[in-house]
Amino acid sequence: MSYNLLKGKKGLIFGALNDKSIAWQVAERAVEEGAEVVLTNTAMAARMGGTAELAEKLNTIFVPADATSVEDLERLIDKTMEHFGGKFDFILHSIGMSPNVRKGRTYDDLDYGFLMKTLDISAISFHKVMQVARKKDALNEWGSIVALSYIAAQRTLYGYNDMADAKALLESIARSFGYIYGREKKIRVNTVSQSPTPTTAGSGVMGLDHLMDFAQRMSPLGNATALDCANYVLTLFSDLTRKVTMQNLFHDGGFSSMGMSRRAMKLYSQSLEKELKEYEEKNMEFLDVKHGK
Amino acid sequence: MSYNLLKGKKGLIFGALNDKSIAWQVAERAVEEGAEVVLTNTAMAARMGGTAELAEKLNTIFVPADATSVEDLERLIDKTMEHFGGKFDFILHSIGMSPNVRKGRTYDDLDYGFLMKTLDISAISFHKVMQVARKKDALNEWGSIVALSYIAAQRTLYGYNDMADAKALLESIARSFGYIYGREKKIRVNTVSQSPTPTTAGSGVMGLDHLMDFAQRMSPLGNATALDCANYVLTLFSDLTRKVTMQNLFHDGGFSSMGMSRRAMKLYSQSLEKELKEYEEKNMEFLDVKHGK
Amino acid sequence: MSYNLLKGKKGLIFGALNDKSIAWQVAERAVEEGAEVVLTNTAMAARMGGTAELAEKLNTIFVPADATSVEDLERLIDKTMEHFGGKFDFILHSIGMSPNVRKGRTYDDLDYGFLMKTLDISAISFHKVMQVARKKDALNEWGSIVALSYIAAQRTLYGYNDMADAKALLESIARSFGYIYGREKKIRVNTVSQSPTPTTAGSGVMGLDHLMDFAQRMSPLGNATALDCANYVLTLFSDLTRKVTMQNLFHDGGFSSMGMSRRAMKLYSQSLEKELKEYEEKNMEFLDVKHGK
Amino acid sequence: MSYNLLKGKKGLIFGALNDKSIAWQVAERAVEEGAEVVLTNTAMAARMGGTAELAEKLNTIFVPADATSVEDLERLIDKTMEHFGGKFDFILHSIGMSPNVRKGRTYDDLDYGFLMKTLDISAISFHKVMQVARKKDALNEWGSIVALSYIAAQRTLYGYNDMADAKALLESIARSFGYIYGREKKIRVNTVSQSPTPTTAGSGVMGLDHLMDFAQRMSPLGNATALDCANYVLTLFSDLTRKVTMQNLFHDGGFSSMGMSRRAMKLYSQSLEKELKEYEEKNMEFLDVKHGK
Repeated sequence: MSYNLLKGKKGLIFGALNDKSIAWQVAERAVEEGAEVVLTNTAMAARMGGTAELAEKLNTIFVPADATSVEDLERLIDKTMEHFGGKFDFILHSIGMSPNVRKGRTYDDLDYGFLMKTLDISAISFHKVMQVARKKDALNEWGSIVALSYIAAQRTLYGYNDMADAKALLESIARSFGYIYGREKKIRVNTVSQSPTPTTAGSGVMGLDHLMDFAQRMSPLGNATALDCANYVLTLFSDLTRKVTMQNLFHDGGFSSMGMSRRAMKLYSQSLEKELKEYEEKNMEFLDVKHGK
Repeated sequence: MSYNLLKGKKGLIFGALNDKSIAWQVAERAVEEGAEVVLTNTAMAARMGGTAELAEKLNTIFVPADATSVEDLERLIDKTMEHFGGKFDFILHSIGMSPNVRKGRTYDDLDYGFLMKTLDISAISFHKVMQVARKKDALNEWGSIVALSYIAAQRTLYGYNDMADAKALLESIARSFGYIYGREKKIRVNTVSQSPTPTTAGSGVMGLDHLMDFAQRMSPLGNATALDCANYVLTLFSDLTRKVTMQNLFHDGGFSSMGMSRRAMKLYSQSLEKELKEYEEKNMEFLDVKHGK
Repeated sequence: MSYNLLKGKKGLIFGALNDKSIAWQVAERAVEEGAEVVLTNTAMAARMGGTAELAEKLNTIFVPADATSVEDLERLIDKTMEHFGGKFDFILHSIGMSPNVRKGRTYDDLDYGFLMKTLDISAISFHKVMQVARKKDALNEWGSIVALSYIAAQRTLYGYNDMADAKALLESIARSFGYIYGREKKIRVNTVSQSPTPTTAGSGVMGLDHLMDFAQRMSPLGNATALDCANYVLTLFSDLTRKVTMQNLFHDGGFSSMGMSRRAMKLYSQSLEKELKEYEEKNMEFLDVKHGK
Repeated sequence: MSYNLLKGKKGLIFGALNDKSIAWQVAERAVEEGAEVVLTNTAMAARMGGTAELAEKLNTIFVPADATSVEDLERLIDKTMEHFGGKFDFILHSIGMSPNVRKGRTYDDLDYGFLMKTLDISAISFHKVMQVARKKDALNEWGSIVALSYIAAQRTLYGYNDMADAKALLESIARSFGYIYGREKKIRVNTVSQSPTPTTAGSGVMGLDHLMDFAQRMSPLGNATALDCANYVLTLFSDLTRKVTMQNLFHDGGFSSMGMSRRAMKLYSQSLEKELKEYEEKNMEFLDVKHGK
């Protein structure tokens, strides 16, 4: 499937680690749709994953950069503009990591140094990318910037920990910077709140597989995959969505607007009825004992 | 418990059917807090339930009225003002009914005459009450109006049917009329979005008991009871909340801000693991057969 | 601009009155993007406007239908399927009208017969269209349905009257039916909450031109035009947005996420300072008088 | 006005600087309603303001503490429990400060060290207070925690800068910790999103007076004052609101649910009409010149 939807457009993509990554899928699909891209990731992530290979496959460059370092970002934007021979059109921010989650610190026992890192990596880096890009006047008018978010920004999910707060901060930064970048350069900034996705980044979250099953049965269209997400993000980079900005856009098969589906309730009810039956039987025994049977 | 929080205040309460009703609890608690009240309900509901008895107990009058009839509402407001000897201070709207739910018409097979009735009874009646009260200048300045809503107005719950749409309409009416009543008379209008509550009105909704269990385990504070709700509504009628208006206020033990709790997931996971195990065993058998065991 | 984004897709479009209509722009752009369309409108609207001419231009049929009449809708769906030779892929609902607005009835003096008509025409018609389409199994899997909404569904704007309530109901219907159509047929249902747009339909709303100026200065990207909206709606009809459902999507240049822009405040401040100055001068005179000057 | 609404309750109040402070009003009103309180603030703020005097007036202690320092908070909680002779019931967090705002760094030129401080002081301090309180088991069951927020968490206001992001983070922390504190100790956590208020803290925000005028004319009930806010916060500390948790509660005279009021539009329109007239006259002159007049 290709519509040449991004013909002539150029973009910078953060966070393509391996083919499970949403950013990876976005990069591949963007190129299929006629765009040129530059890939970036941390040096370490790049070693672990295959960002450099993807760059080769897509016939482009990979620029290692730590998205929390303004200096790195300045170098990255310079190299990206050099590669493209000038300004570019879109940015994807797909970065998130919580040292608290990794080290098993629960939300009522956070390490505050770790929390600062969670926020810096997962949210403030988004501001840094935009501030650096803007100072270098790196983006064409009517450009488009997207960051990936999750519904934990609005609703608490046990085990998601301080990443929830990071996503809330990320979405706020999108709005705040979206106002400035919009009024000055007509550049739009949005977040896409994606279904839980089996990426490497998500693998540390406690009970994620069960949560994904719940989300799958709650969502009338099922969970959105990484490829689904890539397709959606492409529309946001295209010229067809020029007046959408400062929004958090749910891309989740309907999950965010569901209170309870019949399918999820069916599974829940099985356990519930079993529990109620066991409770009754236990109380029956108690009554039997009490009444001397 | 009494603080005389509503000392000197007078109010009109719709929908007190029996002691399970939220409106019933509001009426009793309001009187404990020093208010005078007038009770109203449909003539039929009054016969089924004990509204008249409650009126006697609370030493007040019961005025039968169909809340969808402007004429009835005019008579009701007149009688209420007559009883109080002038203007009054608060109104509780706790009315909802769906003929589609009652007659078993699913949401993809609605009877549109029934839908109109659902909307008229459950939502438009709220506008009628306020329009009539305003035309008769029935409320004192800094008065307070509350209607009861449910989270189905924001998120779809299977089986809740066209009542979801009625609640969305109800909440919109609260905002729209709240603007007018606020700017003119300093009267505030809010909706309280309450936990699923085992009232007589709710009893028709499919699978409500299982849903209530789910809500109970999702909500960190558990479901709010009818009495809890009454206490909360009293604060909204009091002089301590004068600047809260045009809001939909969740009173639900935290349910509305939860994505997934550990407690609810635990129960869900039991069924899920059982299902996965059965699936594996079935596939094992299939493999055994295939491999000639 | 054409990407063949809707190549092979077929759709039904309600509400194309004249070239200012969003529906008109959607029809033209959809055809440019490779779709086939059928147009519908009320017989009266069709006479006033140019729907039939547009049908001719787009080489398709115009089927008059009253969207509040189930019988008309049944005939319409039949004719549409007949024209397409089978199922189709998308529907646009762009219908809204308030007799209360037209007849100058303010929100605190609504005619309830008119209110029922407002709701029936502007919101319930959306349910009717979907219920009829579903009963006739008229849509292909992964089809897409869009209705046009406005931010009045969330925030009160003086003069918008009962249309605000109709839009809230419309958005709720999108969620409620989206659940059912999604789980069964993978069909998504969304509303697009569009900037105020100078269409014929909007022309009755009091003070709309000043409101549009305010929205223009508040929105970092300015108001979205009817053509902008058409482009956006096309992405929602395309295969690139398959997992977006039950959402209300703001297409408004950022307005919905703005509290106050510098540009709008600048204009506001001019009047404010003038008023303050006049107030001071008046009080000065008063003081002069008082002090015998 | 006193109802003894907080009779027997004990609480800790952050941020009472002077009598314009919301925290100051909460402290005074809480004592009037029968509560005992302990006051805290930074040592510097205490010197500038009158926290110690207020403590004397309220016959209680003032404990200086830097809310970003876990060590200070531990000492504070210890002293508070010592003063009360055990656990207490409520906490008010009314703290916010942005070095970026103070130093005139605009949002597109943030100093990231400053941003970290903004977040630490204005949002993360809230987590620290709760984490320390929970570790020390300092609060009674059914206790209540409130932090003050502002609508900038949802909608961008020019000039509010990185405080908007801090408020978004603060509200997320309330939800995240509210889940944990609720399920374990029945303690509720909410934020109150207050009208712009002429406190000392707010005085650095650019154009705040004009914004307050706009909010005043937009809100049907006008802006909520610091005293109004105190009264509302008391209801949230009382036993009447036990099932409200993880909510952001707008206390703003209706502002958050307004799109446009007639009163605000009237002022805006005066400038608009003047501008349009000037524009026309200018163009007339231009036409006159062009046509040789």
